[in-house]
Amino acid sequence: MAESIAADTGRDARPARLEALRNAVEKAHLDGVLLTGLANIRYLTGFSGTSALLFVSQRDAIFLTDFRYETQAAQEVGAIAQVQIEAQSLWARLWALLPTLTGLDVLGFESTHIEHRDFQRLLEAGSRWQGRPTVDLVETLRERKDAGELALIQRAADVACDALAATLPQLHEGMSELAVAGVLERCLREAGSEGFPFPTIVASGERSALPHARSSRRELRRGDFLLLDFGAEVDGYCSDITRTFVIGRASAEQRDFYEIVREANRLAASAVHAGMKGRDADALARDYIEGCGHGPLFGHSLGHGIGLEVHEAPRLARTAEGVLSLDSVVTIEPGIYRPGWGGVRVEDDVHLSTRGPQLLTRFPRELTELA
Amino acid sequence: MAESIAADTGRDARPARLEALRNAVEKAHLDGVLLTGLANIRYLTGFSGTSALLFVSQRDAIFLTDFRYETQAAQEVGAIAQVQIEAQSLWARLWALLPTLTGLDVLGFESTHIEHRDFQRLLEAGSRWQGRPTVDLVETLRERKDAGELALIQRAADVACDALAATLPQLHEGMSELAVAGVLERCLREAGSEGFPFPTIVASGERSALPHARSSRRELRRGDFLLLDFGAEVDGYCSDITRTFVIGRASAEQRDFYEIVREANRLAASAVHAGMKGRDADALARDYIEGCGHGPLFGHSLGHGIGLEVHEAPRLARTAEGVLSLDSVVTIEPGIYRPGWGGVRVEDDVHLSTRGPQLLTRFPRELTELA
Repeated sequence: MAESIAADTGRDARPARLEALRNAVEKAHLDGVLLTGLANIRYLTGFSGTSALLFVSQRDAIFLTDFRYETQAAQEVGAIAQVQIEAQSLWARLWALLPTLTGLDVLGFESTHIEHRDFQRLLEAGSRWQGRPTVDLVETLRERKDAGELALIQRAADVACDALAATLPQLHEGMSELAVAGVLERCLREAGSEGFPFPTIVASGERSALPHARSSRRELRRGDFLLLDFGAEVDGYCSDITRTFVIGRASAEQRDFYEIVREANRLAASAVHAGMKGRDADALARDYIEGCGHGPLFGHSLGHGIGLEVHEAPRLARTAEGVLSLDSVVTIEPGIYRPGWGGVRVEDDVHLSTRGPQLLTRFPRELTELA
Repeated sequence: MAESIAADTGRDARPARLEALRNAVEKAHLDGVLLTGLANIRYLTGFSGTSALLFVSQRDAIFLTDFRYETQAAQEVGAIAQVQIEAQSLWARLWALLPTLTGLDVLGFESTHIEHRDFQRLLEAGSRWQGRPTVDLVETLRERKDAGELALIQRAADVACDALAATLPQLHEGMSELAVAGVLERCLREAGSEGFPFPTIVASGERSALPHARSSRRELRRGDFLLLDFGAEVDGYCSDITRTFVIGRASAEQRDFYEIVREANRLAASAVHAGMKGRDADALARDYIEGCGHGPLFGHSLGHGIGLEVHEAPRLARTAEGVLSLDSVVTIEPGIYRPGWGGVRVEDDVHLSTRGPQLLTRFPRELTELA
């Protein structure tokens, strides 16, 4: 089995990442690659803004952004790439730049991070080079987290758990889902979250059966399931956690329903490991839920990788043939949903280490009745 | 001058929108169009989820989404389009669907809302039809808001203003920017915001000079500028407002700096009107700031349309040749930024009506010193 992560927290990881990308670029027989995916650009350069293009060849690393990020780009990116600030159009600047680079015949571009219109511009401007689509060139590198990244995801998980603990005593019957979201989000900020990786899901009563509800004006009532699905962000790295509660006393039916999901979560979170296929991980929970007769109520996949994005490689799903990488971090989130009645999901973040699965989200999973 | 908006609040606006799209499709000599932009899909169908494809021809309106949205899609979309639920891949379902439709030779697709990979799939699957890129087919329809949309944007503006009023008394020296964001976001939820159209910007002291800062651990100090840029969301429609305050007493230099921006905001917000070019609107504020000798410090454009998206047509910028539509809603957000010292931006949302510009964000603009 491969060695575990190096204890390199605090060291600048970017030169090694750029080196790994350059190796991948060479292997793919490209003279250079244009990166347009912002999470990929952040991974390679540290840039935390929302407007950038990055060109990387064996010799160059050129970073383009706009006026708004002039100061920030110099601070964040200056040490790793040549920063160019553009007042009007990043793409126009790119077309002016590329012809000045020698030896650029085959230019890779990110097929899943470039919209058709920009691809057309690449074609039109590109009489001098040949464009070649690439898929997951940087995403593959990002799958295996280093010690620094794992520490940040652990902090994001801790922030989420701390915020949830601070939230629960403030919840009561009669509050709207929106108000619940307000309390939770404020606790996330106070615990140190830089942002919300995705819109907070607060789904109560029959709305808990909507696997992708947001938050509404519905008010909490006794006997409701209350499903909270949210995350925190620390230095760009995300956590993603779901807990489901009951307002007041849980009925026997709610309890049985809940325990099926909790057990499916436990089975998967304790057995998932690097080297297995995504579909075999998915089956750890799905087989159990199907055995309980609730297979049709578990309509989504078991989980997904997290890191700089809240959804990234690998996938844990019925159709996922890929093998889970060592030192990837994945969510384990089985759920069952009975339309018009209610639903339960229990989600944790798990690091796939050499020592097996390590739970990062340590919030209790026992069914909790909120007063 | 064209008539003002019809007083059709409450009526289902979707059939008329679909009809307008069908006219545009016919004009463009398309047999049908594949819509992939979620805001465009929401505008036409009312769907508020995050995964959908919509096909529209003169005869059909077919809506594809995944399992998670089964209940929601039936409720939201059922009356306007034929809903199909797909368990695995929306794109695979689309390839199965398209060949069953007769008379489909020229298929439009949204060039700015489809990534290269999916466009490739369209090419590969499309031996039976000819793909043709379209740009802004639905965006153009969305530019002119009807009475129902204007009422929702007004509510989103009111929610933002109410939340700001509730936030200010809770702010004090020593609070971190993240904590300020937490208070403001909770107030937004309590005032009824469904979400945050963009990450809340809380930028204090020298960080206020970063035109696109988010929120950090920096703590408020006496003498700081405090810039808050945020929005609310009501039934999918957004507001976007910025106010800049001073913690404690403002210096004479801060006051002078502030008043330049406030006057630029006032000049533009009171003179912007339908029928003028975006670049002429931009000049309303820019000429004044340049006259004050601060042109180089105003490095971004004056504003943008808002609606279902926080950035949509039209653009108010030096390079914007397009004419502003009647009943569009735009932001007016001049700002000047002195790196290392501080910056000021004052932003309002304005409806371009037949009676001239109508301010939707009614929060005071006088320089306010927070205790």
